[in-house]
Amino acid sequence: MPLLTRMTWREVRDAAQRAIAVLPIGSQEQHAGHLPMGTDTMLAEAVTDRALDRLHGTPATIRLPALPFGHSPHHLFAAAVSLRASTLQSVLADVLDSLATSGFRRVLVVNGHGGNDEIMRLAVKEYALRADVALAACSYFSLGDGGTPGHAGHYETSLMLAAHQDLVRAREKRAEVTPPPLFAEPPYPGLTVERHGEWARVGGSTDDATAATAEGGADLLEDRVTALADAIRAFDAATRATHAEGEA
Amino acid sequence: MPLLTRMTWREVRDAAQRAIAVLPIGSQEQHAGHLPMGTDTMLAEAVTDRALDRLHGTPATIRLPALPFGHSPHHLFAAAVSLRASTLQSVLADVLDSLATSGFRRVLVVNGHGGNDEIMRLAVKEYALRADVALAACSYFSLGDGGTPGHAGHYETSLMLAAHQDLVRAREKRAEVTPPPLFAEPPYPGLTVERHGEWARVGGSTDDATAATAEGGADLLEDRVTALADAIRAFDAATRATHAEGEA
Amino acid sequence: MPLLTRMTWREVRDAAQRAIAVLPIGSQEQHAGHLPMGTDTMLAEAVTDRALDRLHGTPATIRLPALPFGHSPHHLFAAAVSLRASTLQSVLADVLDSLATSGFRRVLVVNGHGGNDEIMRLAVKEYALRADVALAACSYFSLGDGGTPGHAGHYETSLMLAAHQDLVRAREKRAEVTPPPLFAEPPYPGLTVERHGEWARVGGSTDDATAATAEGGADLLEDRVTALADAIRAFDAATRATHAEGEA
Amino acid sequence: MPLLTRMTWREVRDAAQRAIAVLPIGSQEQHAGHLPMGTDTMLAEAVTDRALDRLHGTPATIRLPALPFGHSPHHLFAAAVSLRASTLQSVLADVLDSLATSGFRRVLVVNGHGGNDEIMRLAVKEYALRADVALAACSYFSLGDGGTPGHAGHYETSLMLAAHQDLVRAREKRAEVTPPPLFAEPPYPGLTVERHGEWARVGGSTDDATAATAEGGADLLEDRVTALADAIRAFDAATRATHAEGEA
Amino acid sequence: MPLLTRMTWREVRDAAQRAIAVLPIGSQEQHAGHLPMGTDTMLAEAVTDRALDRLHGTPATIRLPALPFGHSPHHLFAAAVSLRASTLQSVLADVLDSLATSGFRRVLVVNGHGGNDEIMRLAVKEYALRADVALAACSYFSLGDGGTPGHAGHYETSLMLAAHQDLVRAREKRAEVTPPPLFAEPPYPGLTVERHGEWARVGGSTDDATAATAEGGADLLEDRVTALADAIRAFDAATRATHAEGEA
Amino acid sequence: MPLLTRMTWREVRDAAQRAIAVLPIGSQEQHAGHLPMGTDTMLAEAVTDRALDRLHGTPATIRLPALPFGHSPHHLFAAAVSLRASTLQSVLADVLDSLATSGFRRVLVVNGHGGNDEIMRLAVKEYALRADVALAACSYFSLGDGGTPGHAGHYETSLMLAAHQDLVRAREKRAEVTPPPLFAEPPYPGLTVERHGEWARVGGSTDDATAATAEGGADLLEDRVTALADAIRAFDAATRATHAEGEA
Repeated sequence: MPLLTRMTWREVRDAAQRAIAVLPIGSQEQHAGHLPMGTDTMLAEAVTDRALDRLHGTPATIRLPALPFGHSPHHLFAAAVSLRASTLQSVLADVLDSLATSGFRRVLVVNGHGGNDEIMRLAVKEYALRADVALAACSYFSLGDGGTPGHAGHYETSLMLAAHQDLVRAREKRAEVTPPPLFAEPPYPGLTVERHGEWARVGGSTDDATAATAEGGADLLEDRVTALADAIRAFDAATRATHAEGEA
Repeated sequence: MPLLTRMTWREVRDAAQRAIAVLPIGSQEQHAGHLPMGTDTMLAEAVTDRALDRLHGTPATIRLPALPFGHSPHHLFAAAVSLRASTLQSVLADVLDSLATSGFRRVLVVNGHGGNDEIMRLAVKEYALRADVALAACSYFSLGDGGTPGHAGHYETSLMLAAHQDLVRAREKRAEVTPPPLFAEPPYPGLTVERHGEWARVGGSTDDATAATAEGGADLLEDRVTALADAIRAFDAATRATHAEGEA
Repeated sequence: MPLLTRMTWREVRDAAQRAIAVLPIGSQEQHAGHLPMGTDTMLAEAVTDRALDRLHGTPATIRLPALPFGHSPHHLFAAAVSLRASTLQSVLADVLDSLATSGFRRVLVVNGHGGNDEIMRLAVKEYALRADVALAACSYFSLGDGGTPGHAGHYETSLMLAAHQDLVRAREKRAEVTPPPLFAEPPYPGLTVERHGEWARVGGSTDDATAATAEGGADLLEDRVTALADAIRAFDAATRATHAEGEA
Repeated sequence: MPLLTRMTWREVRDAAQRAIAVLPIGSQEQHAGHLPMGTDTMLAEAVTDRALDRLHGTPATIRLPALPFGHSPHHLFAAAVSLRASTLQSVLADVLDSLATSGFRRVLVVNGHGGNDEIMRLAVKEYALRADVALAACSYFSLGDGGTPGHAGHYETSLMLAAHQDLVRAREKRAEVTPPPLFAEPPYPGLTVERHGEWARVGGSTDDATAATAEGGADLLEDRVTALADAIRAFDAATRATHAEGEA
Repeated sequence: MPLLTRMTWREVRDAAQRAIAVLPIGSQEQHAGHLPMGTDTMLAEAVTDRALDRLHGTPATIRLPALPFGHSPHHLFAAAVSLRASTLQSVLADVLDSLATSGFRRVLVVNGHGGNDEIMRLAVKEYALRADVALAACSYFSLGDGGTPGHAGHYETSLMLAAHQDLVRAREKRAEVTPPPLFAEPPYPGLTVERHGEWARVGGSTDDATAATAEGGADLLEDRVTALADAIRAFDAATRATHAEGEA
Repeated sequence: MPLLTRMTWREVRDAAQRAIAVLPIGSQEQHAGHLPMGTDTMLAEAVTDRALDRLHGTPATIRLPALPFGHSPHHLFAAAVSLRASTLQSVLADVLDSLATSGFRRVLVVNGHGGNDEIMRLAVKEYALRADVALAACSYFSLGDGGTPGHAGHYETSLMLAAHQDLVRAREKRAEVTPPPLFAEPPYPGLTVERHGEWARVGGSTDDATAATAEGGADLLEDRVTALADAIRAFDAATRATHAEGEA
């Protein structure tokens, strides 16, 4: 799996026209008492790296270093290192602009943090209007029939047990919170509801993590890796022809 | 249905603490050869006004004038009047900030244009961190089990036939486009794909509109109105108690 | 009077080269105890629509939906919905840019709110440097020998009685304020003076409105409509030739 | 006439509460073939310094160094050194903010360049909302019954002959331009019209300067100095009481 | 060496008051034909991690994940992934603001890329005015008597041979460039000179790298590590007392 | 020494291709009890004007009016008139852009205030990437072997005694401050340290000024003038050939 940070500029330039540049983005934010600050970044990287390995170079990809910081203003009450929305927009715009300038015609952003989601999708929409590129973006947890990841609960804890077991601390039973967090369980499907102080009210996680296991995590990780690898193949198939023309 | 633009400032101030302020947002952009530029704005207003009427003041609402312009850079090739993403973000931030300053504790944004969706959700997330408010946002077409609206195709044409039949021009059969637009039918579920020039390639709409009827449109409109009215009741129920405390 | 929101994009595109695009802008802000929040927007629209009707299509115009929100930070103490100066600048810049991109060569902004005045004039100055267009801007009340409109006093109340009598509430005699508001009656002609808290000190209006009548309002409205229609004809005459060349 | 640049910080701090800070602003831009680039700055300074001298310290004033650069994008075709509108807005906002932070309660901006006018008025409006200050702004040529200054024509040439005769080069008769510049003589009173390329079309000035004399300039300069001195006295009278209270 | 990304939020919060947060920043940019794109990031991390290890927790530090992207617009001609200056300023401001919000009172930025230098120093100056913190910043190569690092020449190649020998490709003799690059060897000491196209003219590096050895690199690395460890101890000594008071 | 403000635009345009435009920048900020607010601006001008005189037109230069305001947020506690960093960046970018638009190919910024230093160097780096120009920047005190200027101490007082003796007030002995200011004497060479409140703690200056004399100041001024004149000659020699080609 070629890593941009380890390649020389000529290697990058030579591969840019055909390869898909892949940028993982994450966050540094509270993940309850048992998961580390970098959980979202680590999981975006874990899924991305396994998926790229599985592709065996078909299609060709170049993996950029992960952006370790994300948009987490809702976690600043608990030691997050957060970029403002406008800052993250600028970072993504600059990275996309650099990649297009360097000759890349296809870029994929793989996100591990819910708070980055709208900003990431907006970034690829905006930039695709400015340059002749095909851009893709996903949160690893919402590809295919991905289920609901929550935050620092069963889902993420399972994945961390599978990918970074040494970093998972002892878990405490999470007390039931009534009503459940509005941002996670909106009162009507499709309605986004944001209430001031909601994250603090519910204690920083969406659901209990004590039942999570490394085995369940391994299954979930496998499922996400397969989905991402399939999504990359599909993106390649949908956009390869167009850009191959340009090279003929 | 109280309209802010027709109320005096004291009437607004008196109602602000309890009422939900409702802001429709739309666009002015191409909608193929048969629908008017303001389709998204008109439909956001049509659904909103019918839903607010149906509530009969429970909960109390105050309807703001619709923002007639949206984020449509992908339609600038065809006569759109578009706000840049940063401009729409600023408009929404300023409106939310004004409303909170005026005493509103609850605001709902109802959107009629896909291109506004991320910006709108981002705006309510951001502002809910800054002030003690509960904010909600939805695109009228994605509430509940809303189906896929597409653009200037069967869905929007049906609704316009029901709500503004006089504005729907003669429809021509839309030629099949292969492959279908990547933004509307991504190659993998959950993957956002944006390709330069895609809207022009597919001719500006997502699907054929010749089979749309006023009757089908009336059913669809009724469904959307019911969903929005229910969503507002649910938002009210979820956020009423908290804020009633503040007034006691 | 063609309304952009009701036209298809091809109708807009076909008319753009010759027609003057007309954008009314207003505000949502306190207008004392008897006038509605949207007074400025309604009056900008009332004057604009009557003037465009009177032109009978000579010159051709296309009326954009009014921007219902303006720059009213000085009324935030009393329930305004206000855009910051930078936001309004961005909105106007984006609208002008969109219109030029869509082929319009001539645009007129008609303003109903004093607080928008500098921003509007700045916007047309700036944009005319960037594209080959002829842009015009006016506040409806300062065309020709327009007198002093004040705020929520005799002038605006007269016009609202003529245009929207049902929205004018019972008026109370306004107590004399000494000294009169510095922003309205500067201590020296041509000197702009702004003092913190001045709007609150003078109670939100500039002069008494109890003597205003619907008849006086009708005369004033007629005067303003005539002035705007004449101004549009003059703008057309001054800029028609140049741009007709481009089409020959 | 105390000059801020020559005072120590304690002298400034001690005087700030009572004195009016006065900031001249100008431009560096083409003024036809016979006037220097800095004409607007020099004239703003000439009028300001003579007016402040005439006041003999009543009211107390502190003169800031002039901002030598202004907003002149319409003269970039002819060697202007211009600040963008947003830059000039930031400079004025920062200067006003600094002065308020340093204890000044009253500031006057004296402008010598038409292109700065809206930005300057906007700046004082905006800042007066943020801090407990009284701010004034004027263009020296529009105080009282100031007549029409034009650009690089009879008016400015007369003043420069009176104030800086050594800098006025030989004048050539200006050919009549038909139609006259739209920005200077709008087709309808009160209508701002800006047409792309208009400054270049009319050759960079508004009217002929060959009849200007040093005597006429001296009268005009005297008139402007009197107007500004009177305006400062009026501003002081209107705002002194309020702020004296604060010190008692 | 505690890594923020691997700590839980409570561990971070508990340590924040006393520990120095350390943020490495680098770049992804061309480093001639033999060094990888991420050279600056890797070297900032190599020096930082060795120095933090050497401190053995005295003073306590928490290492943040490195920002892998820097300000490299001058290398966009050769496949850099670059953040604009304003973006990097925003990232640093947001990170510093987050850390102060989380309770950190002392932060150190360790930079590996010349193009970040002014932006980094500006960022710590700006933020120290806004919050009660003590901030430090350095480029690892300019601590103490650090010599001239150049770009992709003898200095950086030596360090990479010591730290990441596997990533150094075969070196070609660099042809002499006359005159030498103005940005690296200014025509007068203390004068910054930047000429358009200079980086391309000199082929992307400042000096020949063929004589660099792993042994020389190890000595240089040891020297840089010692300097950074000493600098951190000195920063701690200079700022410890003040902040310990706050906790007593 | 040609001054842009006194030249006509044609004189500027004719000279631009060959002449070096020279922009002095300074500040308005506290300089202890004995030096005036404008010390940095006056010294930048004093050194610049004497150096340009000494060149006798070889190379040709055009001196712009000094920017009298700088970036002094650290002196806002003591009556500074300060531009924010982003404002100063914009001013410098706009001036450089204007000069390049007007045909200048070479520009030199001469700075008199430490707080402007990074922003100035960043500005010339950024702009040289955008246009085919050669840009230079220096702080007059750091050219050659310039010593440490400090702030409002021996160095600046000496120069002011030489250049503006009438503006230097009676000096009081400065009490020793322990520890010395961290920004002036960092705890480790090459480490920038900024601590909140440090300027106020040390009383606004870096060292005692009572031993400064006009004679010492004259020697220092002569040294700085010589250095700047030499630096300009060196800049000219290094960049003349390239740009002469363009004119052949």
